[in-house]
Amino acid sequence: MSSAPAFTLSGRDLLGIEGLTASEILSLLDLAEEFVELNRQIEKKRSTLRGRTQINLFFEASTRTQSSFEIAGKRLGADVMNMSVGSSSVKKGETLVDTAITLNAMHPDILVVRHHASGAVALLARKVDCCVVNAGDGAHEHPTQALLDALTIRRNKGRIEGLTVAICGDVLHSRVARSNILLLSTLGARVRVVAPSTLLPAGIDQFGVEVYRSMEAGLEGADIVMMLRLQRERMSGSFVPSVREYFHYFGLDEAKLRIAAKDALVMHPGPMNRGVEIDSAVADSPRSLIREQVEMGVAVRMAVLDTLARKLPNA
Amino acid sequence: MSSAPAFTLSGRDLLGIEGLTASEILSLLDLAEEFVELNRQIEKKRSTLRGRTQINLFFEASTRTQSSFEIAGKRLGADVMNMSVGSSSVKKGETLVDTAITLNAMHPDILVVRHHASGAVALLARKVDCCVVNAGDGAHEHPTQALLDALTIRRNKGRIEGLTVAICGDVLHSRVARSNILLLSTLGARVRVVAPSTLLPAGIDQFGVEVYRSMEAGLEGADIVMMLRLQRERMSGSFVPSVREYFHYFGLDEAKLRIAAKDALVMHPGPMNRGVEIDSAVADSPRSLIREQVEMGVAVRMAVLDTLARKLPNA
Amino acid sequence: MSSAPAFTLSGRDLLGIEGLTASEILSLLDLAEEFVELNRQIEKKRSTLRGRTQINLFFEASTRTQSSFEIAGKRLGADVMNMSVGSSSVKKGETLVDTAITLNAMHPDILVVRHHASGAVALLARKVDCCVVNAGDGAHEHPTQALLDALTIRRNKGRIEGLTVAICGDVLHSRVARSNILLLSTLGARVRVVAPSTLLPAGIDQFGVEVYRSMEAGLEGADIVMMLRLQRERMSGSFVPSVREYFHYFGLDEAKLRIAAKDALVMHPGPMNRGVEIDSAVADSPRSLIREQVEMGVAVRMAVLDTLARKLPNA
Repeated sequence: MSSAPAFTLSGRDLLGIEGLTASEILSLLDLAEEFVELNRQIEKKRSTLRGRTQINLFFEASTRTQSSFEIAGKRLGADVMNMSVGSSSVKKGETLVDTAITLNAMHPDILVVRHHASGAVALLARKVDCCVVNAGDGAHEHPTQALLDALTIRRNKGRIEGLTVAICGDVLHSRVARSNILLLSTLGARVRVVAPSTLLPAGIDQFGVEVYRSMEAGLEGADIVMMLRLQRERMSGSFVPSVREYFHYFGLDEAKLRIAAKDALVMHPGPMNRGVEIDSAVADSPRSLIREQVEMGVAVRMAVLDTLARKLPNA
Repeated sequence: MSSAPAFTLSGRDLLGIEGLTASEILSLLDLAEEFVELNRQIEKKRSTLRGRTQINLFFEASTRTQSSFEIAGKRLGADVMNMSVGSSSVKKGETLVDTAITLNAMHPDILVVRHHASGAVALLARKVDCCVVNAGDGAHEHPTQALLDALTIRRNKGRIEGLTVAICGDVLHSRVARSNILLLSTLGARVRVVAPSTLLPAGIDQFGVEVYRSMEAGLEGADIVMMLRLQRERMSGSFVPSVREYFHYFGLDEAKLRIAAKDALVMHPGPMNRGVEIDSAVADSPRSLIREQVEMGVAVRMAVLDTLARKLPNA
Repeated sequence: MSSAPAFTLSGRDLLGIEGLTASEILSLLDLAEEFVELNRQIEKKRSTLRGRTQINLFFEASTRTQSSFEIAGKRLGADVMNMSVGSSSVKKGETLVDTAITLNAMHPDILVVRHHASGAVALLARKVDCCVVNAGDGAHEHPTQALLDALTIRRNKGRIEGLTVAICGDVLHSRVARSNILLLSTLGARVRVVAPSTLLPAGIDQFGVEVYRSMEAGLEGADIVMMLRLQRERMSGSFVPSVREYFHYFGLDEAKLRIAAKDALVMHPGPMNRGVEIDSAVADSPRSLIREQVEMGVAVRMAVLDTLARKLPNA
């Protein structure tokens, strides 16, 4: 939730939700629905990206997101190459740019990039000729996560407009929260953030969300309860909350879920800290959409890759 | 050689040799023969698994086995994705299940799994919809190793029934030994295990094998001498044998090999500790089948993947 | 620049530039030109290597070279498998050979190998049946680097014959220098090496090059200034130069570049140590060919893989 500058789907890249229109978002979701069906077939191969090279450039490890993009690209027929860059070998922005320029010279068509610094993916995108997809940059944006969350909500509630969505927990360190706030607001949902004061970013009220500092108040009548991962690896010193205390006040258990709407559904971007931000009984209940979110992730990424690939100039 | 519960080829998975019939084993070996021929061609590609997604999920590093499964899947046309999960990031069974559920939601068709705990692969198989192949679970089973060993023996001896096979060394820690005992017994071989008492599992006599505590007695008249890797990384404290002493009593050298049948052949699952469980002169001699075992490994894995893929329901 | 024995393109392998004829080199460069064009298309796929298995076996990490070979193989339709072998797990030449024999048994068609010891790739090539490409062995050779450098020079200068090329810096530890000296001499360029005495290998004068110990003398009239990476990780104790001093005397900045020919062009094999062997103003100037070298790398490797694949016996 840093104040990194706004980057948009510039026609060639997907750098964030910011700047996307409702119509662009809905097109991506509609296309993703087709891939949901495809992925449930035995034969899952398309040749849309045949002859294209996709490089997954991850400066921050993420088995889940990288796998999702890898499967998405391969099912569309791309040649996919993974490059995991240890953060130790990349200490200067200068080197990030050298890496980008080197990769670009190999003529990839799509670069999927995760980086620990907000804005790094956009910086990189300005140095290369190919399509760039932001797979998460610092506390800035994680657009495909927001798209897969929206698809999951729409499939289960039939709509997004008019729903009340409570995004709960470590909002301060969450690119997932930021991208979801932007997307859900654009599509007409009523968005709340629920967090202790220490985990709320400054200026959060400018995002057009309702801010709550207790689960009791924030979950009241919510249609969707979206829990965030407590990112203790990004905290330091006295700001690291005790797990026990955090769970007591902000962990989602069955008692707290009863405050939400009767048919409220539960989401989590994973990987879960069970017993920290979410209780296992809730995570594994029929009201949990967590497994479906992962499934939607592959479909949404296929939709994004497919859409960007269609914008590639023909040589 | 733990007492983990028995898991069988349930029609969808290959979790172990236990429960396979002689006829099922022989079908796999016959199909593998076809792939041996294919792999010796220049053009080695089949489209059997085209559009299918194979994930190699290795909780324990194994360059050799993972490569063999990767090549097998790619030659059959699958989209293959490797996931190496450092054991440090997976500390709880709970997380193993979450990993399985997450991967399953991405709709893989085949999951090839290695795990350091006996029974973990079967546990995982119960949580997913796709085919699961056990690539080694703790000291329990390693079914494709036993299949490749059987194929190697049959190609060199013309049969398995009636042969005397001596499995020698660290039987206690060996899933290779367990799977081989089950398979060779099923096909009618006479199986001996030869090991120091400290490296023999309790209850080994229930497996219908002859137990020897010296190479001199155990190798007498053996048609096949199958050496095991001494897995010192799984031992601790005073139970770690001295390499020099171990080689003296249980390492296979030319003198000990002379005790076996005149045309006895030598096997080892690799990677070898030369000078520990096997002498280089034996490992590199014309009587060694070690290189051929690796070749058979790719063919057998192709046969397994092909067989399981044919069982996938059509959507 | 060790005195490892000479290995040549034996008809099946590319182990070094040594032994290649001018005609063989020019054929590779001409073929590479076709792949330069292909790589600039959107659809970049060929089926030349369909059904072939390429294994990238890297005993020394190299993101850049490995990626280049991976993309090259995939674009030609090969099944590509990466094997990164930590140097810790390979301590004995014996094990290198076992690794080679194991991989060979899986019937790869092409093995791309990088190893930290001079001559190791040639040793391995003698143990396997498939084509072997040297992707860098110790301080011995790095033939595809020299080929890509030659292609880059020819495209920018229209020729190689008669040009004056100054190879500057850490010649002692550089396989790039050695391969370039051999190739450029074969094609009729006038080659200079420019280095402090401590970074010049013994016997360098036997290579038919002019030796300079200062940039001022060595760059005079040079058409191409080829900087080498200062490989401090290969130096020890008092032989490690101070970065500041090194840059002062041997780092290429705009002032030193003015000594070279008016239209001199600058090269670097990457990754660059900016401010050590090269100044950023030079590296990023229009006279720098560094990005183009990376692009040529993929094309040259495609030409090498394609050429070797055509030599594979048909089964």
